[in-house]
Amino acid sequence: MIKNENLKNGVIFPRGAKNDAYAKYFIGQSYLQGLVADSKIDVGVGNVTFEPSCRNNWHIHHDGYQILLVTGGEGIYQEEGQPARHLVAGDVIVTHDGVKHWHGATSNSWFSHVAITAGTPEWLEPVDDIQYQKAEEDFK
Amino acid sequence: MIKNENLKNGVIFPRGAKNDAYAKYFIGQSYLQGLVADSKIDVGVGNVTFEPSCRNNWHIHHDGYQILLVTGGEGIYQEEGQPARHLVAGDVIVTHDGVKHWHGATSNSWFSHVAITAGTPEWLEPVDDIQYQKAEEDFK
Repeated sequence: MIKNENLKNGVIFPRGAKNDAYAKYFIGQSYLQGLVADSKIDVGVGNVTFEPSCRNNWHIHHDGYQILLVTGGEGIYQEEGQPARHLVAGDVIVTHDGVKHWHGATSNSWFSHVAITAGTPEWLEPVDDIQYQKAEEDFK
Repeated sequence: MIKNENLKNGVIFPRGAKNDAYAKYFIGQSYLQGLVADSKIDVGVGNVTFEPSCRNNWHIHHDGYQILLVTGGEGIYQEEGQPARHLVAGDVIVTHDGVKHWHGATSNSWFSHVAITAGTPEWLEPVDDIQYQKAEEDFK
């Protein structure tokens, strides 16, 4: 059974359109609603919604950071060399400069977070099915 | 009738404790739950909940900015010399460096927002009852 399908309608913030701009850095369908993109502000803010099993590639924020504010559903966050974490609404993640990581939905739930991002992302290899299944086993 | 009393229990993020640290810069009771306070990150993130009629003093963010992500209830945002704005869940406010402003709940509703703040605040005079009532009339 798929959980939290109501996230298709957004949680507080709009779900946004299909995230075509970043699709090449994701496995599965994600949606992006920009919330802040302002030349005078050194962070960008966006609401990202992931369908079940959708996740982004491994990536690094250089000369910056990322903060995730989890708004709904169930997700996964993993830093390289660390066990995966299970995320639910209200969880907050800080990814420091230079840390390789990925995030996405669990296999049986939609997931959404607000992302506050500074610096320049470097997109790396996808999280393949074996890595993804192992990540889910870390918290089951 | 007071609206959105459920915000007393938090919206996604915890309501937090009474905001004693900043009480001298507020009229009325606010609550603060810190979400990110990290020496490696140049913004602070917190969830602020306002009881009805609660508002902060006029203030300025120097060498920085503030982003408000409205999570629930009904609120007010005003920049000096501008009409007040009525805020509801999903609204996003960006306050630029040096802009004098205040925010708070409407007189008949609880209100909550996540605040992302950079720089140094300068706290100024309170929003007195006459200013507050006039602000509410701006959008009624």
